[in-house]
Amino acid sequence: MTLKRFACLLPFTASALLAQQPQQVFGYRDFTQQAKWDAAFLAVPDAKLAGQHLKTLTAEPHWASSPEDYKTAQYVAEKFKAAGLDTKIVPYSVLMNKPISIAIEAHDANGKLLMSGPSPEHVDPTKDGGDPFQDDPRVTPAFNGSSPSGDITGEVVFANFGTLADFKKLAALGVSVKDKIVLVRYGGNFRGVKVYIAQQYGAKGVLIYSDPADDGYVKGDMYPKGPYRPESGVQRGSTQFLPIYPGDPETPGIASTPDLPDSKRIPADKLQKNQPSIPANPLSYKDAAPILQALGGPQTPRDWQGGLPFTYHLGGAPGAAAVTVHMHLEQETKLRTIWDVIGTIPGTDPEQKDDWVVAGNHRDAWVYGAVDPNSGTAAMLETVHGLGDLLKQGWKPKRTIVIGSWDAEEEGLIGSTEWVEDNAEHLKHAVAYFNTDVGVAGPDFNASAVPSLKQFVREVTQGVASPQGGTVYDAWKKSQEDGHGRRGQSEFANGANNKSTEVHVGDLGSGSDFTPFIQHMGVPSTDIGSEGPYGVYHSVFDNYNWFTKFADPTFVYEQQQARVFGLEILHMADADILPYDYRPYSKEIAGYIVTAQQKAEAAKLGLDFAAATKAAARFSAAAQTAYRSQTGTPTDLAALNRALRDAESALLDPEGLPRRSWYKHVIYSPGEFTGYAAVVIPGVTEAIDEPDAARAQAQIARLAEAVNRSADMLELAK
Amino acid sequence: MTLKRFACLLPFTASALLAQQPQQVFGYRDFTQQAKWDAAFLAVPDAKLAGQHLKTLTAEPHWASSPEDYKTAQYVAEKFKAAGLDTKIVPYSVLMNKPISIAIEAHDANGKLLMSGPSPEHVDPTKDGGDPFQDDPRVTPAFNGSSPSGDITGEVVFANFGTLADFKKLAALGVSVKDKIVLVRYGGNFRGVKVYIAQQYGAKGVLIYSDPADDGYVKGDMYPKGPYRPESGVQRGSTQFLPIYPGDPETPGIASTPDLPDSKRIPADKLQKNQPSIPANPLSYKDAAPILQALGGPQTPRDWQGGLPFTYHLGGAPGAAAVTVHMHLEQETKLRTIWDVIGTIPGTDPEQKDDWVVAGNHRDAWVYGAVDPNSGTAAMLETVHGLGDLLKQGWKPKRTIVIGSWDAEEEGLIGSTEWVEDNAEHLKHAVAYFNTDVGVAGPDFNASAVPSLKQFVREVTQGVASPQGGTVYDAWKKSQEDGHGRRGQSEFANGANNKSTEVHVGDLGSGSDFTPFIQHMGVPSTDIGSEGPYGVYHSVFDNYNWFTKFADPTFVYEQQQARVFGLEILHMADADILPYDYRPYSKEIAGYIVTAQQKAEAAKLGLDFAAATKAAARFSAAAQTAYRSQTGTPTDLAALNRALRDAESALLDPEGLPRRSWYKHVIYSPGEFTGYAAVVIPGVTEAIDEPDAARAQAQIARLAEAVNRSADMLELAK
Repeated sequence: MTLKRFACLLPFTASALLAQQPQQVFGYRDFTQQAKWDAAFLAVPDAKLAGQHLKTLTAEPHWASSPEDYKTAQYVAEKFKAAGLDTKIVPYSVLMNKPISIAIEAHDANGKLLMSGPSPEHVDPTKDGGDPFQDDPRVTPAFNGSSPSGDITGEVVFANFGTLADFKKLAALGVSVKDKIVLVRYGGNFRGVKVYIAQQYGAKGVLIYSDPADDGYVKGDMYPKGPYRPESGVQRGSTQFLPIYPGDPETPGIASTPDLPDSKRIPADKLQKNQPSIPANPLSYKDAAPILQALGGPQTPRDWQGGLPFTYHLGGAPGAAAVTVHMHLEQETKLRTIWDVIGTIPGTDPEQKDDWVVAGNHRDAWVYGAVDPNSGTAAMLETVHGLGDLLKQGWKPKRTIVIGSWDAEEEGLIGSTEWVEDNAEHLKHAVAYFNTDVGVAGPDFNASAVPSLKQFVREVTQGVASPQGGTVYDAWKKSQEDGHGRRGQSEFANGANNKSTEVHVGDLGSGSDFTPFIQHMGVPSTDIGSEGPYGVYHSVFDNYNWFTKFADPTFVYEQQQARVFGLEILHMADADILPYDYRPYSKEIAGYIVTAQQKAEAAKLGLDFAAATKAAARFSAAAQTAYRSQTGTPTDLAALNRALRDAESALLDPEGLPRRSWYKHVIYSPGEFTGYAAVVIPGVTEAIDEPDAARAQAQIARLAEAVNRSADMLELAK
Repeated sequence: MTLKRFACLLPFTASALLAQQPQQVFGYRDFTQQAKWDAAFLAVPDAKLAGQHLKTLTAEPHWASSPEDYKTAQYVAEKFKAAGLDTKIVPYSVLMNKPISIAIEAHDANGKLLMSGPSPEHVDPTKDGGDPFQDDPRVTPAFNGSSPSGDITGEVVFANFGTLADFKKLAALGVSVKDKIVLVRYGGNFRGVKVYIAQQYGAKGVLIYSDPADDGYVKGDMYPKGPYRPESGVQRGSTQFLPIYPGDPETPGIASTPDLPDSKRIPADKLQKNQPSIPANPLSYKDAAPILQALGGPQTPRDWQGGLPFTYHLGGAPGAAAVTVHMHLEQETKLRTIWDVIGTIPGTDPEQKDDWVVAGNHRDAWVYGAVDPNSGTAAMLETVHGLGDLLKQGWKPKRTIVIGSWDAEEEGLIGSTEWVEDNAEHLKHAVAYFNTDVGVAGPDFNASAVPSLKQFVREVTQGVASPQGGTVYDAWKKSQEDGHGRRGQSEFANGANNKSTEVHVGDLGSGSDFTPFIQHMGVPSTDIGSEGPYGVYHSVFDNYNWFTKFADPTFVYEQQQARVFGLEILHMADADILPYDYRPYSKEIAGYIVTAQQKAEAAKLGLDFAAATKAAARFSAAAQTAYRSQTGTPTDLAALNRALRDAESALLDPEGLPRRSWYKHVIYSPGEFTGYAAVVIPGVTEAIDEPDAARAQAQIARLAEAVNRSADMLELAK
């Protein structure tokens, strides 16, 4: 019924929705028919329905592998089926920890109890409407994924954000973390990296707290008055060594199907690679403040001072007033079943139907996950709703569309990684992966993408109306001009993209499900969402009440997100010529090489970049040639598309990166010491940073080979 | 006895003390004899004796006009006499307020009491040694000088630092301060300016608190553990409208001698000019926090957030949760006697003995004043000690030396201003005023000066050994390279001085006793001191205990300060040729004019700067000529020195600045809306800022006239 009603309205709404649909769209010889399908699609995603999806999906805590998680899988599968997708619930059996009990106590040098926790996440129910979700007994306790069990006691040292620079600074100040429990604050890098570095420095445990300077009262009013983290709010999260590899720790490179024999698994006692050996746990600042305040020793460097009302000290100096923490973490780490939901719309072009367009979002949440991830799920369901309507109107895509609702992302991209490993052969000729995780946290649209798809994303957003007036692109540009939401995850400042007056599209680091697609398989990827002041990340307060108060009360940004996500899928599935633009990619690569060369020269490493520079120049010329073919009148469309498609996966190095061979992409990876943020030309850059001149020179060679391989492909793009 | 012992040691200590005494010293034809006197002088100032002076001077609270203040005058006078100075205690009768009672209460919108104070300044006596001085019943209550009495009740609005920009921002946000009590934090400008602007915006009262982000726990450990302001610490201070005029409010331009007839005084009911009409009082953050925390209304702009542990709000918005403050200030404002101590060493050069070299420091304190001002007094007494020793050894200065121990500086530079007004005729041919206020707060030497004396200060510091090794100049340079203590008080960024790789010498704004000398009389001035982490400014905790824990436990920086101060006096009193270098001055002036021109062009004011530019060019050429004369073989030394001397006072405009005619100097004044910080070419700059094009054009003409007058003088320097 609903679908029909919308179908009737199409002729009227289409022109209004397509605020400024471009006449010429890259990849299309004639956009006329696609414009009609776009209009038909854009009319469908419904704000109210998105709100209903969100309410249903977030009604209960639905931690990966829980019965409530399975209920959300069933809900999503139903919606997929209703839209006409070929739908499966795909289980994997993966190793995950869940706490049986968590107890953390701190005492000062005189044995006085400073803190016994963790405190429950709780706000005053009588103020500002309180929070209706906080008291559910199924709320996941505050814990870190991938933490082992542990019963340890140690003196505390404060290490700021726990970056490599912070640990180096501590060492330079003469403060050892050996056999200490390190207290770090969230921010600056991925939490798993904090533990990774702490472990390397010999710490025996890690506590990670949320400082009010980072997402609490210093930023603005706290929940429930405002959107920022309240005193008791905790950021749960995985401390997997994500930059080593994501997914099920026991099965890097292969899928953890339920029938996988144990012999194919790395035994738990040999699990050194992507799992910490020291325990870690998150804390609210309510629990961390008494520890931090009691620390003796020298003052921290002044730029380590956070927002708590006392002077921060390092602790741990010889003779300093010591704080002793006892961490008793009892984790049940075992194989658990998770459920991806996969919906497929088969492609119809005989030559390209196997060239999948994959789009996905994770579904599992630390607790309720209204923003992270179900704002994305709700939008995706309305995207699927729109695709379903098109199917009913007779639309058939050229390329096969696969929609994934991933599970256990929070534990370390497990659902997506296992599925990617399960479908590796097929994904070798996938043409794109479109991700959304935090679909909506506020009004500021933002995106990251491989360089070849940056212009594609800009173009798609020019076809969708913004609730703020104009197009999503216009609002995105304005929000960046106002200083909001400039996603710039990569650790460099020289790339051509950054100098542009165009809207900035970030680089893909990690921290969401695009990682296995782009960095393991070389599938060109994007990641989109709409951001805002969001201080309740991974806490019990990321729930429907928070969402409807602060993120998107009328779900219009949900609708926007469904539309943008849908246009990405439609245009990639139906373009005559794959809409990659490799010219910006070539500028980025050339810029990265120049930056690396400057760093190497500053460090006097005596490296020879000639091979890489030459390869980049060749790639650049080939990108120009390809672009001319794409915009000209190619003779063999199928051959052109194959060449374009394979240019990205040609950038994979079969050997992978040093120390982390699962990561194959020579241009982008999560940084070994950053996690979330991309490191560009990582093999070369990280060897220079270390510094290891021999390794750097070898990596320059491998980079040059990969770029040449990619140029080979682009030269075939005729 | 002591003196003799030191005299005996001279031959040994001199070479050690003169780490790298330059061979050629600007202003001396032959430095040989002066080098001997320098060595003799430098051997005298004694660290232990300085410590004893400090201990004696700060034994009791000695607020200006109090009996204890008179005791310090007697102590200083005794030391002056003992050194052989012709010594007088010079009284003035000046209008000053002192509170009989101060009561401040705050209630929230429901009538709940939030705060009743002010709280006494107090730290826990059982921790970190406590504070032995805090409980003296004579401790001045926390109040603001120049505040009228008042019994007012009003809603509170928070206005950040209370700068002009802050009040403009509030207005732009739709928050009116009309009939409100404005809560502002210290910092960003002079406190009297906060009240000046608040009064203009219609506020009925002002509360000024110390935010922990500015001098409390955010900066570092709080007293008594560290040097920063504790929770209950209050910054007292004058809220005089200093940029209008300093000194006794009833007698601008004339001296408040005890025999001044009442008819020469402005009647109190007509006192509008440099005294606020609305009451003001300082608060600790202990007392301010409950008010600030209870404020409703919109969040402040995020860069207004301070260091207190909650989100700051503006209050005062329609319908916002209001905080009501009741201020009951009963001030006794009456004529009080203050005492300058003046010591003179007569000059012997028949032609130059009336060209005074004046040096001074204030003696009165808000409470104990260990750093501010008696670290300066203690050092100055050791300087005098050294001069006395030279006298005993037969030294006689060319020019008369006058040493002033000023009173009532804290209330608004009253003692120095009245003395300057009293001796105006004589000061017309003074050759320098050397100020020190905070003599020692830590190890980082720093200075401000008129441009003609910047190189002089650098040269003097090259003649004194630093406790850190090398010379004071070396340590000064290093501390600036390390990012410490770069005094840059003026509001411009274009001057030649700032571009130099030389050690930076700041510009003279206001806030200490150099103001009447340079800005009213045109006497070339410097201001020196040794800085450090100092969070107890104007509180009870600025006492001997704080000083010996954090500033200078062994008084070696006291000794250094006495030496540098002494060399300034000696070299200025005995130089053959006055050691002003007008070449940097000409660069500064030319730079200021360019900056003003750029501002005027940006504001499209259509101003004609030709006359000023031409005058500056002439001044520049004349400065070069003068310098050649100074370093050549001038025929008439006396004429050369007269010309050099009068070049500075030629920069006075007899009409003074618009709206504040007491300020006569056309190049430097305290900013009308800054107070402490210098505004350069203030008549022009402030008219451009307003903007008032007609006034700016008229001020350009007056600037050109003054610069031409000064060039006239320099052209005579042959």
